[in-house]
Amino acid sequence: MDKQQLLAAIEQLSDRECKAIERTLTAVQNMKENKYPFLGNFLGVTEETDADSETFVCSMPIGREVLNPYRIVYGGITATLADMAMGWMLEKRISGQDKFVTLDMHTNYHRAGTGKRLIATARVINQAQDIWQMACDVHNDRGDLVVTSTGTFLQLHRSRD
Amino acid sequence: MDKQQLLAAIEQLSDRECKAIERTLTAVQNMKENKYPFLGNFLGVTEETDADSETFVCSMPIGREVLNPYRIVYGGITATLADMAMGWMLEKRISGQDKFVTLDMHTNYHRAGTGKRLIATARVINQAQDIWQMACDVHNDRGDLVVTSTGTFLQLHRSRD
Amino acid sequence: MDKQQLLAAIEQLSDRECKAIERTLTAVQNMKENKYPFLGNFLGVTEETDADSETFVCSMPIGREVLNPYRIVYGGITATLADMAMGWMLEKRISGQDKFVTLDMHTNYHRAGTGKRLIATARVINQAQDIWQMACDVHNDRGDLVVTSTGTFLQLHRSRD
Amino acid sequence: MDKQQLLAAIEQLSDRECKAIERTLTAVQNMKENKYPFLGNFLGVTEETDADSETFVCSMPIGREVLNPYRIVYGGITATLADMAMGWMLEKRISGQDKFVTLDMHTNYHRAGTGKRLIATARVINQAQDIWQMACDVHNDRGDLVVTSTGTFLQLHRSRD
Repeated sequence: MDKQQLLAAIEQLSDRECKAIERTLTAVQNMKENKYPFLGNFLGVTEETDADSETFVCSMPIGREVLNPYRIVYGGITATLADMAMGWMLEKRISGQDKFVTLDMHTNYHRAGTGKRLIATARVINQAQDIWQMACDVHNDRGDLVVTSTGTFLQLHRSRD
Repeated sequence: MDKQQLLAAIEQLSDRECKAIERTLTAVQNMKENKYPFLGNFLGVTEETDADSETFVCSMPIGREVLNPYRIVYGGITATLADMAMGWMLEKRISGQDKFVTLDMHTNYHRAGTGKRLIATARVINQAQDIWQMACDVHNDRGDLVVTSTGTFLQLHRSRD
Repeated sequence: MDKQQLLAAIEQLSDRECKAIERTLTAVQNMKENKYPFLGNFLGVTEETDADSETFVCSMPIGREVLNPYRIVYGGITATLADMAMGWMLEKRISGQDKFVTLDMHTNYHRAGTGKRLIATARVINQAQDIWQMACDVHNDRGDLVVTSTGTFLQLHRSRD
Repeated sequence: MDKQQLLAAIEQLSDRECKAIERTLTAVQNMKENKYPFLGNFLGVTEETDADSETFVCSMPIGREVLNPYRIVYGGITATLADMAMGWMLEKRISGQDKFVTLDMHTNYHRAGTGKRLIATARVINQAQDIWQMACDVHNDRGDLVVTSTGTFLQLHRSRD
């Protein structure tokens, strides 16, 4: 599909359908500035200022794009937010150079993901050698607990040359 | 942003950036036909014909849109695919009416999500009352095992009137 | 083996070996009084008074009998203590009649189980219909975090006649 | 309690109560020969010959000593058996020198642990660097699936001097 065909097809969309296109456009534009990958930009994941130095908080809006057939946020997307929060915390707080790989993740779903936003609060539970054991709770904007999760991450040391 | 502003902004994008817009457009168009939610259409999740009646297989392409900063598929997205496969299997094979809610999910990450496609193979491990215990393995298109996961689902009976 | 053979064999044991026999004897004697099963009595699991009404605390001594080849408590035993704490809390606090079945349990091991005692602190995370989602942390007597765990329990309603 | 008091107390026990004492005695005697810790000997965990070189099988009898108040095997004990099987497989097959520490374990309970024996079949799912991702299924002697579990183990290299 060339650009003219793309534009012509978008012209046919309803206003509601255009919302998804607009969200993608915004994500693509934001990527240029913040250098983060598409997915986090598309989901609208942003860091929250957090008074507590032991935790790391980020959040995302609940848009139509992430709803499942029951009109609640896909469990996988809520888990993705939690995984991002734990990984982001490690990268930002712990080291500017190293990579962190998720070895496993366990997610308990407590309540349907509904409301305007999901807020993920990550924390380090334990560190031993290169193994980081993390936890992350996700609440909605009304303060309801949506998900509790834990993840085990392996720190990969980048060669420093 | 009105439609003219949207079209003008898209006109400025590079061909590579337009790919994400095109993926969104295709998802929006497919939604009208298949009535599935946006996310599965955006990820390009499709059912695979499966010779084995005990399993359910679906797959998704690995596009730029789902890559993390290390250029591999986000763990959360691979988990989302596995969760979709298990839920889809339950809805399709087990009941045409009932809802299935994920109570918890455990994901073991074995290998980076790379290649052209991810293929998820779900199966029922056990059923007791309204509790379904499922498992799902995800391979890439070269046959490497990327993820093994298990999920516990609660069947919610819809009133039949 | 009849009782005379049993007594004769025990007579041959060293004092240290007799400790395990004594622990078993005490468990068997306690069973008659408290009507709890053998295992909890053998492990010496006892309820702790707990100021916090939101949690339930029980503990067990770290004896030679539960040490693995590395001279630390078997991970499975620490998990057993956590599982007992969560199940005991449900039975005691939530209902005097119903049964609670563990659907799944996830255990993160943070530190070797060493010291004099293990103390398990259970709490309810969420309840929806007959599903109870619990968590339990295990510390040693020096306050070190040994294990964090979560469990999903199904409440089975006993017929009340 | 000195040995005479111990023997006198055991003399008072019923035949059924003596069974637990006898099991302990056997465990203590076996420890001297096989050098394994008490718990595995007490539970009666033994290796099974296994035709399949990709798996490792061990089993234990279901005795009164491991039953919970509902007269089924404690979930924690079944998990202990699975954890032992995975750890034992690693120690025996992979290395004669190194230690393996459980980082986390996930257990799905499918069916009550009943019957005469529990049989645990462990396998390696993946190995990357010092991380071993294992799985273990536990069946009863009638072939029913009781538990599926996965564990993540860290290999600790012993200095070889």
